[in-house]
Amino acid sequence: MKIGMLGTGEVGQVLGSAFVTLGHEVCMGGRDAGNEKATAWAKQAGPSASHGTFADAAHFGEVLVLATLGQATLGILEQAGPLEFSGKIVLDATNPLDFSQVFPPTLFVGTTDSLGEQIQRKLAGAHVVKCFNTVGNVSMFQPQYQAGPPTMFICGDDDGAKATVTALLRDFGWEAADLGDIRGARAMEPLCLAWVLYGVKAGTWLHAFRMLRR
Amino acid sequence: MKIGMLGTGEVGQVLGSAFVTLGHEVCMGGRDAGNEKATAWAKQAGPSASHGTFADAAHFGEVLVLATLGQATLGILEQAGPLEFSGKIVLDATNPLDFSQVFPPTLFVGTTDSLGEQIQRKLAGAHVVKCFNTVGNVSMFQPQYQAGPPTMFICGDDDGAKATVTALLRDFGWEAADLGDIRGARAMEPLCLAWVLYGVKAGTWLHAFRMLRR
Repeated sequence: MKIGMLGTGEVGQVLGSAFVTLGHEVCMGGRDAGNEKATAWAKQAGPSASHGTFADAAHFGEVLVLATLGQATLGILEQAGPLEFSGKIVLDATNPLDFSQVFPPTLFVGTTDSLGEQIQRKLAGAHVVKCFNTVGNVSMFQPQYQAGPPTMFICGDDDGAKATVTALLRDFGWEAADLGDIRGARAMEPLCLAWVLYGVKAGTWLHAFRMLRR
Repeated sequence: MKIGMLGTGEVGQVLGSAFVTLGHEVCMGGRDAGNEKATAWAKQAGPSASHGTFADAAHFGEVLVLATLGQATLGILEQAGPLEFSGKIVLDATNPLDFSQVFPPTLFVGTTDSLGEQIQRKLAGAHVVKCFNTVGNVSMFQPQYQAGPPTMFICGDDDGAKATVTALLRDFGWEAADLGDIRGARAMEPLCLAWVLYGVKAGTWLHAFRMLRR
């Protein structure tokens, strides 16, 4: 297939090279046709690789990949010409990450608060640990998965409380994954939504997340 | 340990029974002391189980578990008395789910839009499939995990486009998990945040999600 890769950063280069390796043709687009990173990438990626403007890449591809900075994305689509995308598959690899304030970043769309944070504010003296909200109740206690123990995401402001909860989770048959302070609930509550949406499409309610490491 | 279980529904019962099985004492709290579900649960759960009001459960527990409906939770905490929670570990298993409009539910805190949806609105004629946004670029192409292939979450309005992307993902070494239409981006973009937050705490950037089934 012909792939139009919008974005010249690491994600665009990794995905672009992967598509070339798999036998596809890739045109990488940047702000201008002479973009240094796109030129260098196309040279080392071989004869199936080319480069140009965002509009060139959008015109070239049967499948278009958005590997642009989240905050720049809508402007880049305008620049490339929205009509070029009509009828095509657009792989959206972007994220609405706001790095301007702090690290870790926040999202600039949605998620400015969470129920976990509201609860911690309500119970100012308590050590709230968000937990058990990313799996259905039939799997909460000692679920058996062939692939090994599932991962329970937790977050909270107090490290001692999280250590206690981590030990409890082991008894419950879960491996804990700490997402930091209570603002992690902004990520964990939508995880519940991901769990529900997967269940709706896959027709199962016995699923659970696992975090893989290597 | 002494566990105060706030909530008499399925989650409260499953977690309450699990704590009893593990040798803890559990007091289940409901809106009133004679709550039928709490009474029946305590009876069948044996001598380590008791029941009472939300305030009774909050007073009883060294560790408190919130297994209440999201929309009712802050009111219940007010009813139970926020000071009862001071200095205690509070396991927050709630989710801000809004079932009033549609199924699948939405979240009533945050997440009223997503970059994926903004992109689809901008490219009205295109088939946007959110993809590759929940893992770092070093793991995007044919990553090797001992536990087997990781899971790439996808969502989008066009089933044909998602079928094409699912086949592509197989070539890339991923199993696809479809979260439904493009509004699934409200769950998938915070998944990126969960990935980042885990990396910060665990000190790894080679991790990836997997959806376990049984």
